[in-house]
Amino acid sequence: MPFKSLDDLRSACTNLPAGSDTAAAAVARRQDTLTKPQGSLGRLETIAAWLARWQGRDMPKLDRVKVFVFAGNHGVTAQGVSAFPSEVTVQMVANFAGGGAAINQLARIAGADLTVIPFELDHPTGDFTQGAAMDEVAFLAAVSTGYDAVAKDLDLVCFGEMGIGNTTPAAAISAALFGGGAEIWTGRGTGVDDAGLARKVKAIDAGLARHAATLSDPLKVAANLGGRELAAIFGATLAARHHGIPVLLDGFVCCAAAAPLAKLHPAGLAHTLAAHVSAEAGHRNLLEALGLPPLLDLGMRLGEGSGACLAVNIVRSALECHARMASFAEAGVSEK
Amino acid sequence: MPFKSLDDLRSACTNLPAGSDTAAAAVARRQDTLTKPQGSLGRLETIAAWLARWQGRDMPKLDRVKVFVFAGNHGVTAQGVSAFPSEVTVQMVANFAGGGAAINQLARIAGADLTVIPFELDHPTGDFTQGAAMDEVAFLAAVSTGYDAVAKDLDLVCFGEMGIGNTTPAAAISAALFGGGAEIWTGRGTGVDDAGLARKVKAIDAGLARHAATLSDPLKVAANLGGRELAAIFGATLAARHHGIPVLLDGFVCCAAAAPLAKLHPAGLAHTLAAHVSAEAGHRNLLEALGLPPLLDLGMRLGEGSGACLAVNIVRSALECHARMASFAEAGVSEK
Repeated sequence: MPFKSLDDLRSACTNLPAGSDTAAAAVARRQDTLTKPQGSLGRLETIAAWLARWQGRDMPKLDRVKVFVFAGNHGVTAQGVSAFPSEVTVQMVANFAGGGAAINQLARIAGADLTVIPFELDHPTGDFTQGAAMDEVAFLAAVSTGYDAVAKDLDLVCFGEMGIGNTTPAAAISAALFGGGAEIWTGRGTGVDDAGLARKVKAIDAGLARHAATLSDPLKVAANLGGRELAAIFGATLAARHHGIPVLLDGFVCCAAAAPLAKLHPAGLAHTLAAHVSAEAGHRNLLEALGLPPLLDLGMRLGEGSGACLAVNIVRSALECHARMASFAEAGVSEK
Repeated sequence: MPFKSLDDLRSACTNLPAGSDTAAAAVARRQDTLTKPQGSLGRLETIAAWLARWQGRDMPKLDRVKVFVFAGNHGVTAQGVSAFPSEVTVQMVANFAGGGAAINQLARIAGADLTVIPFELDHPTGDFTQGAAMDEVAFLAAVSTGYDAVAKDLDLVCFGEMGIGNTTPAAAISAALFGGGAEIWTGRGTGVDDAGLARKVKAIDAGLARHAATLSDPLKVAANLGGRELAAIFGATLAARHHGIPVLLDGFVCCAAAAPLAKLHPAGLAHTLAAHVSAEAGHRNLLEALGLPPLLDLGMRLGEGSGACLAVNIVRSALECHARMASFAEAGVSEK
C-alpha cells in the first residue's frame, strides 16, 4: 500500500512531475511541416502534443491502452437518492465480466483492455449525512488500490466507475471543492424523479453541513463525502501522473473523483483530458471549474468509462496523423 | 450518365425514398431493454436508430464503409481568394495516392476504404464572377460521376473534398440558398489574411449579383456558383439516399455541396449526419440552417473528409452497443 497516511498521500499530490516541454515542442514543430494548413487539424494537433508532453516522448505511442472501471456501493443511498437499487452495482459487475455492458463493446472498439475492480460491494461506505463515508484507513486503502492498479508501461488510461448512487457523492465533492450550493451540482443520475432530485439536494446539503469543518482539505472532502471507487480513480489519476501516462477522464463522477488533485496542485490534472461532457447536470460546470474543455458532447450519462473509451479513437487518430502524414517536402506539395 | 437534363435530376431530387419507420422503431424498442438507464447512451442511441431507418434493417451493418474524396479546381481563384496556389490540388491528389495525407490515416483508423476522384484538375471551372462556373452539361456530368461512384451495397459513406479555393463557391452557394449576405458565410479557408478575406467577400458578392436571376433554383445555384467536386458530392449524396445508404457529411464545403438537396426536398438530407462542425466561419451557420447538429466540434478545418472519417468510429460504437449489449433480462440486472 503506497500511502500509509494522509500526509504521505498529500506529499505525492503536491510533488508532481512536470511534463516534457521539449517533447511537446518537437511535436508542434513537426505538425507545422505536415501536408495540411497549419493548425487545420484543430484539437488533433494539440492532442498529439499533449501525448508527447506527458509520455515524455517526441513520438508518442498508443500500444497499451487500458480502461479501468472501479465499482463501489454507497451508504447515502439510504436517503433515496437513486432510481435503481444498490444490488445493481454487483449485477453490473457480473455483466462486465460477461461482456454484456456498454463498456465491453466500447473498450473493444477502442482497442483497450478492460479491467474491473470492485470494492466490497456488500459493505457500502458510510452514509455521509450521518458521518464520514470512509475513515482514513478505508480511504487510503481505496486510493492505494487505484494507484497500484496502474502499471507503469501503459501508454494511455481511461477511468470509469460503476456505483448506484454515486452521482450524489460526486455532487457533494464538487460543491465542497468549488462552492455554489448543492443545486448547481445535482442532477438526475440514472433518472430520479423530482422527489428523488429533491432528496439528493437535501442529502448533499446535510453532508456539507455535517462535514463543514473539513471542507477546506481536498483529501478529507474525498474521504468524508466520496466513495471507494471515487478514491480509487483519484489514486489511479495520481499514479498515471507519476508514471508518465496520459489520462482520459470520463463523466461527472470520474471528474469529481479526480478534482481534489486539481485543488492540491495547480497543474494537478494537466496530464488528463476530459473525454466528454455528459448530460448529468453538474458535469459542464465541473469541467469549467477544472478548465478542461471536453472532446465529445453526445448527451451520454452512463458512466462505466463509456465516454472516455469513445474518445480513445480520437486520440489514436491524432497520433496516426502526427506519426504518418507526409511533410510538404516529402510529398512535393507547394506551401503558401 | 444517370442525368441527361436538369429536369431528370430535379425529378430524382424531389422523389426521394422515405426511411423505414419500422426499423427505427425496432431499434428504439431494443435500446430500452439493454443494460443501461434508458437514453443514457445519448446520441449513440439515436445514431443506431438512424442507421436502421436509412439502411431499412432492424439490425444495421457497417461491414462496407467508404470515404470518397472528390477533387476539383476553381476559376474563381483568379480573384485571389486562397492562400495556396491551385497546383496544390493536384499535388494533394498525388499525396492521397501515396498515403501521406491526413485522410489516409483517418480512413485507415476508421476502417474505411478511400476512393479519390479528381475532375480535370488542369481545367478549372469558370470564374463565377465572370460567368457560370459550369454549364449544364459539365454540371450534370459531375453530378452523375458522383452518383455513379456510390455502389449500392455500401453500408455507410463519408464524403470529402479537395480543391484550392473551394470555400469560396461553398460560401456563395450558402449565401444564395439561405441569404444573409456574403460576410456571414465567408471564412479564411486554408488561411487567407484580411485582404484575402475581403477579396473573397467581394468575389462572392459579385457572383451573387451576376447570377441573381437564377438564385431561386437550387440546381442552377449549384451549377453557376459551385464546382465539380461539390456537384459530385451532391450527386453522391443523392445516390446514397436512393440506395439506402446513410451518409456522414464533412465540413463546410461538403455541407454546402449537399445543401441544394435540402432546398429541393424538405427531408432531403435526413439520411445524413453532420460529422463535425469545422472552424471555417460559415459552417456553424450552415448546419443551423440545415438543422443538422454536429457530432464533433474539434476546431478542424482541413476538409478531405477528415471530420467525417473521425466520426465513423462513433457510428461503429453506437452499432456495437446496440447489437451486442445484454438486456436486463439476459444479464439478470434489476430495473428501476
